[in-house]
Amino acid sequence: MQKASLRVLTFLFIGASAAIASPPVSDKTEECLSCHADVTPGIVADWKRSLHSRVTPEEGLKKPALQRRVSAKSVPETLLKTVVGCAECHTLKPDTHKGTFDHNGHRVHIVVSPPDCSTCHPEETMQYSRNIMSHAYANLNNNAVYHGLVDQVNGTYAFSDGTIGLTSPSDQTNADACFYCHGTVIGVSGMRQRETAMGEMAFPVLSGWPNQGVGRINPDASKGSCMSCHTRHQFSIKVARNPATCSECHKGPDVPAYPVHLVSKHGNIYSSLGETWDFTNVPWKIGTDFTAPTCAVCHVSLLVAGEGDPPEIIAERSHQMNDRLAFRIFGPVYAHPHPLSPDTTVIRNKAGLPLPTKLDGEPASSYLISAQEGKDRTAKIQKIYSGCHGGNWVEGHFARFEETIRTTNEMTLAATNILLAAWEKGVATGLAQNDSIFNEPIEKMWVEQWLFFANSTRFASAMAGADYGVFANGRWYLSRNIRDMNEWLDLAWKRKMKKEK
Amino acid sequence: MQKASLRVLTFLFIGASAAIASPPVSDKTEECLSCHADVTPGIVADWKRSLHSRVTPEEGLKKPALQRRVSAKSVPETLLKTVVGCAECHTLKPDTHKGTFDHNGHRVHIVVSPPDCSTCHPEETMQYSRNIMSHAYANLNNNAVYHGLVDQVNGTYAFSDGTIGLTSPSDQTNADACFYCHGTVIGVSGMRQRETAMGEMAFPVLSGWPNQGVGRINPDASKGSCMSCHTRHQFSIKVARNPATCSECHKGPDVPAYPVHLVSKHGNIYSSLGETWDFTNVPWKIGTDFTAPTCAVCHVSLLVAGEGDPPEIIAERSHQMNDRLAFRIFGPVYAHPHPLSPDTTVIRNKAGLPLPTKLDGEPASSYLISAQEGKDRTAKIQKIYSGCHGGNWVEGHFARFEETIRTTNEMTLAATNILLAAWEKGVATGLAQNDSIFNEPIEKMWVEQWLFFANSTRFASAMAGADYGVFANGRWYLSRNIRDMNEWLDLAWKRKMKKEK
Amino acid sequence: MQKASLRVLTFLFIGASAAIASPPVSDKTEECLSCHADVTPGIVADWKRSLHSRVTPEEGLKKPALQRRVSAKSVPETLLKTVVGCAECHTLKPDTHKGTFDHNGHRVHIVVSPPDCSTCHPEETMQYSRNIMSHAYANLNNNAVYHGLVDQVNGTYAFSDGTIGLTSPSDQTNADACFYCHGTVIGVSGMRQRETAMGEMAFPVLSGWPNQGVGRINPDASKGSCMSCHTRHQFSIKVARNPATCSECHKGPDVPAYPVHLVSKHGNIYSSLGETWDFTNVPWKIGTDFTAPTCAVCHVSLLVAGEGDPPEIIAERSHQMNDRLAFRIFGPVYAHPHPLSPDTTVIRNKAGLPLPTKLDGEPASSYLISAQEGKDRTAKIQKIYSGCHGGNWVEGHFARFEETIRTTNEMTLAATNILLAAWEKGVATGLAQNDSIFNEPIEKMWVEQWLFFANSTRFASAMAGADYGVFANGRWYLSRNIRDMNEWLDLAWKRKMKKEK
Repeated sequence: MQKASLRVLTFLFIGASAAIASPPVSDKTEECLSCHADVTPGIVADWKRSLHSRVTPEEGLKKPALQRRVSAKSVPETLLKTVVGCAECHTLKPDTHKGTFDHNGHRVHIVVSPPDCSTCHPEETMQYSRNIMSHAYANLNNNAVYHGLVDQVNGTYAFSDGTIGLTSPSDQTNADACFYCHGTVIGVSGMRQRETAMGEMAFPVLSGWPNQGVGRINPDASKGSCMSCHTRHQFSIKVARNPATCSECHKGPDVPAYPVHLVSKHGNIYSSLGETWDFTNVPWKIGTDFTAPTCAVCHVSLLVAGEGDPPEIIAERSHQMNDRLAFRIFGPVYAHPHPLSPDTTVIRNKAGLPLPTKLDGEPASSYLISAQEGKDRTAKIQKIYSGCHGGNWVEGHFARFEETIRTTNEMTLAATNILLAAWEKGVATGLAQNDSIFNEPIEKMWVEQWLFFANSTRFASAMAGADYGVFANGRWYLSRNIRDMNEWLDLAWKRKMKKEK
Repeated sequence: MQKASLRVLTFLFIGASAAIASPPVSDKTEECLSCHADVTPGIVADWKRSLHSRVTPEEGLKKPALQRRVSAKSVPETLLKTVVGCAECHTLKPDTHKGTFDHNGHRVHIVVSPPDCSTCHPEETMQYSRNIMSHAYANLNNNAVYHGLVDQVNGTYAFSDGTIGLTSPSDQTNADACFYCHGTVIGVSGMRQRETAMGEMAFPVLSGWPNQGVGRINPDASKGSCMSCHTRHQFSIKVARNPATCSECHKGPDVPAYPVHLVSKHGNIYSSLGETWDFTNVPWKIGTDFTAPTCAVCHVSLLVAGEGDPPEIIAERSHQMNDRLAFRIFGPVYAHPHPLSPDTTVIRNKAGLPLPTKLDGEPASSYLISAQEGKDRTAKIQKIYSGCHGGNWVEGHFARFEETIRTTNEMTLAATNILLAAWEKGVATGLAQNDSIFNEPIEKMWVEQWLFFANSTRFASAMAGADYGVFANGRWYLSRNIRDMNEWLDLAWKRKMKKEK
Repeated sequence: MQKASLRVLTFLFIGASAAIASPPVSDKTEECLSCHADVTPGIVADWKRSLHSRVTPEEGLKKPALQRRVSAKSVPETLLKTVVGCAECHTLKPDTHKGTFDHNGHRVHIVVSPPDCSTCHPEETMQYSRNIMSHAYANLNNNAVYHGLVDQVNGTYAFSDGTIGLTSPSDQTNADACFYCHGTVIGVSGMRQRETAMGEMAFPVLSGWPNQGVGRINPDASKGSCMSCHTRHQFSIKVARNPATCSECHKGPDVPAYPVHLVSKHGNIYSSLGETWDFTNVPWKIGTDFTAPTCAVCHVSLLVAGEGDPPEIIAERSHQMNDRLAFRIFGPVYAHPHPLSPDTTVIRNKAGLPLPTKLDGEPASSYLISAQEGKDRTAKIQKIYSGCHGGNWVEGHFARFEETIRTTNEMTLAATNILLAAWEKGVATGLAQNDSIFNEPIEKMWVEQWLFFANSTRFASAMAGADYGVFANGRWYLSRNIRDMNEWLDLAWKRKMKKEK
């Protein structure tokens, strides 16, 4: 009933505004819509709900600076006066996209890429290129150590004649696992005829598809997918700003940002009152549009506050996402200052391994940001905190967090020393034997120490969601695991001693 | 404030509509309400919010075909012209219900059953009878292998004089565990006087109660409970269509459909925008009523699309729920083509066990759907996909999913072969010794391989929620568990060898 | 669009009501706001949304009894006629608060405490003082057994020369872990100059800050923080009543009330329809304001029902929270009748340990409520159940729950007996050797038996969320753990025997 009354009202308002002006759609896009409204009705309906279907770049360019979502200084004349429809994106720069094909007289590409988006949104595209996420494919695939972990996680085992044998994972399996989030390589392997509602037509055959991973390698060789967060085809800023969107890749025990946020006081407030917030305003105003931080508040969005006109800018928009963060608390293996370059394959620790720290925790400092840069980044996020918290609160929170970085690194070191002892005593085989450091049970216990338990404890500390950092997946397991690893080593060593006697 | 304004408006609209017509309530139901509005105010208030309290079957029958929720061709004259109240359901077919009792001059039964609902909804009742869920009680209880698992999970242990002993679980315990979802047997064990607000009255004593399990055995001997999803007494289609409702039984690591949906892109969209969707429209229109699939979209609801009148039907309503699915990815033990009959107790594998595959994974094909039927079912769900995705996307998704079925079955086979070796070498006792295959530690590791890790990996693949399928509960554990099982076997075998020397 | 239409309407209504009367703000608070609207805009905006900013105590005192939120019979004249702003709370009783400081001519304290709140809300403060939660700090910190567990969970390990060594956790670490929920001791260690937007100013330096734990020790020596649930500075009853708020401390495997609620039928209804409920009405009316219980419904809120004027009171408001509960199902170590006193440090079991049961499960009865008191408490919560469920339903539910208490206690006893055997046989060191009972692997397995698996099974039973109590974290692990512990003991004993030969 309530809904019904709302709908009547909504209808009146939509009716009224629709009467004022019908947004101009390009002839090319009208042509797309004429078939696709029937062929892929979900996509078309979704797009009709988008701002792209209602605002022309020309109108977007006229918005006051703080409200502008179009960061380009100018937009090509041909795109200026119609809304951003199918053709505007999917026929852009056709020669740059491997896999562009003729489709009803148009040169269409399936996979829209950041360089396409940068036509209107160059600032955001540039920022994102500095985001570690944009390099997520190569950072995982082209790092020999991490690639070895992928093989051990996704490979398949067979057991026969008393021994187990590992087969490396197929591309399909990797795309269904790690590279779902990290991004696949989208290849084009020829054309194929397909039966469609409009008769037989030819389409390119894409490999590594579907994928919307953050570091996807696109057919135009660009990196990343804006769609990871700005979900097609509604491109709703409400979706991009919603914590659930971040959860797609940040929910598991390796990077549990989402579950930690939910159990934090901030998450409680969001869950209780979020339905009354405005997730669409640009700029985003503290206390007016929302009353507790979400992921986007601290890490991405343009924030303002106060009654002034213009209001005070609390944080500039960023798609780099780590430019307000001093520490990379994810590891691997230890928490450390953030890397200088988003391309982490260049990093070498003192032992020559492509890791941001040595196995004893010593940072590969020349590849990491300086202490001063760390302080500057911390100051930026602390300015956001200060919108709602006093200085003592903020300092107390950070002191506790840095202590947690220290102690979780200590607990990782303890686990690493047990593993090193196992290798040294010859009850496990590791680096010296040129064997995988991720395959044996004691090595898997070691991985869980830093990848699951230390990470979870740190995320819980960083975002004040302690419940997750104790019994859910944190300190309880950090200490239990040390005792289990120690017991394992002790028994293995005793067995070896006895055998050698 | 916002809420207050809404409430004023709502009041106006409700007031207006209420003035138009008051729905006719039967005299019998008025009599029920006269006491129960005080005695069980929650139930009455809930019912008042339901469609049942506002629409008569006669009105329901007049709806245009696509909008009709009453699937009966006709409804008995006595029920036709009043809304569906307490008496209409709880005094229906009194002789068929064991436990019908005299209550203020009416012959009432407590447990309303699918045959009662079929008075107006026969199509849905028939569909549901073909749903494996409707046989969930017997499929678990009357399968000797699965029953053995129930005993090992729910039984209680005592430890004394150095040995552990298992006591089989009580009916109460089973009802509080597996049969909460699978359904209990509702028995009637006589009558009992109770003190009530209206004086002393006699009521039947039900055993196995409360329960709303999907395969409940009702006092009229029928199977299932429509209330599992169409929660009493609001019977809201919004509840039935909400993923949270499915989560009641599909959240744990054995069948993690719900957590996987939430971390998928579809789940992200639902979490971000679901509050703007219409969960009540019948038929349910893609892009208009919702912009991303939920459980009900793909597995149950009548879907339409497009601007036509009538709109195009994308999927017929189904309460069979597996008629758009080729594979049963749940196991046990291996993923396999769906069973032909919802009664899975009839299945025998080539070794004579009541399992849909042999322990080496070979399907008991004569009890399972054919490859062609699998393709036909896949085509049905792909038609839903096609509302929002191109052909390449859909094919890519399915190719990846089938690869995941293959690899997770391989990982189950590896674990099974380790277990078989343990039995053969005499370090564990299994089928040959007529011992439980679910009680020893190595056997429990084996169970987790297929029931938790393989299932989780497959659900994550099927619904594109990769985060759950890697570190949360998937491939990481699939491979770790093989290494742990292998180490266990190796050490057990060495101990046995040494002892025998 | 829908949102826009709403906003216009909201604006009209707010505009209208604002015109009627502007709430009187005290001069002192106006002074605070004049700077803090810029300095901490989030806090000010939050407060402006609160009832505190719109209602004076005088108006609050005039509300009809059932609607009154101010439980004081009278409020000091000086506070009566202005809304409850910054100064009203933060300058109250300045001499009682260690850390009161001069701030622009006002004597301000940072940490508002229950005695401050009791100025207007004495009943609730008194109720809360009887809540075990208010003693959560000392109950954990000053109980030697529990304190030992804290040390083993939060301490850090180092491994060198083949042995591991434990360092006790720092205060910072404890505050980031257990005491985040239990509450820290807020100390004041002098003053410090800080650079602010208004120039340099002096502020007290708080230790143990930030914290909003339920048993926080405040600078005025009082216990607890109303802000744990009545989140500052909006103090929204909608937040306090939302299950997400309880999840901050009740989500992990030790006390999984929140995840259990979500998978229960009640949680499904809440997730599906909660957005249509009214979380702000006082009193809270069953069926009208909500249609399924949340945490606050059963454990805290003033509930009414029926059409009468005044309506029937179903449950009186309580901030004791266990006065409708017979059993403390949390352990440790066994489920038992609730303690008589919220100060559980006074308890001694027959073996002299500060535990509510002996290690064999025998309750320390003289410190626990009587069977009759248990029945009286159960009757109170059953009255709430009866709003929506018949007598047979309610009795069936409780019979099943009590069976689950019995069987989970049995499973805890089996684990305990294995541990006792390990100590006795000398393969682990425990009480007799004055060694921690929480440090060795077999002891940690024992802790998980009662703290994770038995608790999870009991919460799942109490709140009918069976999915969580079987494979998610319940019976599967209860029985698996017994088998693992038994195998561990068996192997350890055999190794010891062999060595001694």
